[in-house]
Amino acid sequence: MDRDALKAAAAIAAVGEVDSGMVVGLGTGSTAGHAVREIAKLLGAGRLTDIVGVPTSQATADLADEVGVPLIIPGEATIDLAIDGADEIGPELALIKGGGGALLREKVIAASARRFAVISDDSKMVAALGSSFDLPLEVVQFGLTITIDALAKFGEPHLRLDDSEAPYVTDNGNYIIDLAVLPITDPAATNAALHNVPGVLATGLFVGIADVAYIAGAGGVRRIEAGSPA
Amino acid sequence: MDRDALKAAAAIAAVGEVDSGMVVGLGTGSTAGHAVREIAKLLGAGRLTDIVGVPTSQATADLADEVGVPLIIPGEATIDLAIDGADEIGPELALIKGGGGALLREKVIAASARRFAVISDDSKMVAALGSSFDLPLEVVQFGLTITIDALAKFGEPHLRLDDSEAPYVTDNGNYIIDLAVLPITDPAATNAALHNVPGVLATGLFVGIADVAYIAGAGGVRRIEAGSPA
Repeated sequence: MDRDALKAAAAIAAVGEVDSGMVVGLGTGSTAGHAVREIAKLLGAGRLTDIVGVPTSQATADLADEVGVPLIIPGEATIDLAIDGADEIGPELALIKGGGGALLREKVIAASARRFAVISDDSKMVAALGSSFDLPLEVVQFGLTITIDALAKFGEPHLRLDDSEAPYVTDNGNYIIDLAVLPITDPAATNAALHNVPGVLATGLFVGIADVAYIAGAGGVRRIEAGSPA
Repeated sequence: MDRDALKAAAAIAAVGEVDSGMVVGLGTGSTAGHAVREIAKLLGAGRLTDIVGVPTSQATADLADEVGVPLIIPGEATIDLAIDGADEIGPELALIKGGGGALLREKVIAASARRFAVISDDSKMVAALGSSFDLPLEVVQFGLTITIDALAKFGEPHLRLDDSEAPYVTDNGNYIIDLAVLPITDPAATNAALHNVPGVLATGLFVGIADVAYIAGAGGVRRIEAGSPA
């Protein structure tokens, strides 16, 4: 089973939680894209009705338009269930997100949802966050070198560039710093310390936000509820 | 002595810390404006030389250009001394700032400076922050009502409007929420809790950042070093 098939399997399992009439938060990235397509398929087949999505990025809004998931504006209604991928999944379903650059919007949506399901293939599971993936931070453009200097005590900060080697700019008009860190032993404490750097607007650490994970591997899709033993 | 004369007296006292050759962070607002003008005056008189300023807003950059304080780009050099006003000054020189809407840039500058001097008339001194001034928060435009809902547990959130009754937009492209709160007993804890709301990009709580305060009252200018008894 290739990696993309595993992502699709995790997404399809999570969409099993979607009931007709729900407001669904739609994440960004390849795994979340499978969830958007699955919802569209079930809507098309009449097995789901009266679903509206809340997109976390322009890319996701475009995909939803293309496949046929009706959208509402964020904040127009309480989100019943948000579904999104992650770059790393650690103990207690703490996450690193932001590889796709939409971490701030994804966190606003995921944290406000009644329930947040994270979906992934099993290659993203780690014993400690930061083991294999740099931590993305959304930072203000103003005083960038000041913020980079302040982040040096946490690790190695790298300004994310776009395809033309210019700084990558988020949907909110900010920059992304990918911070190479040692494995994070206390994500909540690291998150708080990073928020004490004034130029840091949002971190890719999602702590206490995910309620359930659907993790696809060779043996099938494993469901992990937050608070249950790993 | 009127209020503006007191602000000027505090600013002039703080500018006494400026030595030739320094990089000086220039705050935003009426009190900080007095400091910019005093530095320009001393430069014009030849009593200070080789000063460069780092402005915290476009308004301050415009003022510095007008009165003749040379500017550099934030991050081009380490700031020796930042001077700025405050909306409230509480115990241990914890501050509320952001009445002028420049809280994020002011915090980036103040926190990165070797030394930060806050200047004020004595009407801003309070026994607990939040007593008389709403707490400004810089928030992302995306999902505004979600952020407002999340802030309701901290107090009464009010979206700041501009003169044309449209939402006020900061120099960084974000909104400001003025949060009416009960007096804040633990500013560091409140700051951390507010940063756990994903849409909050920066708070007007400046905790552990000010090194010295110059407070002007009828009896003259009082100098308070951080860590000294109130």
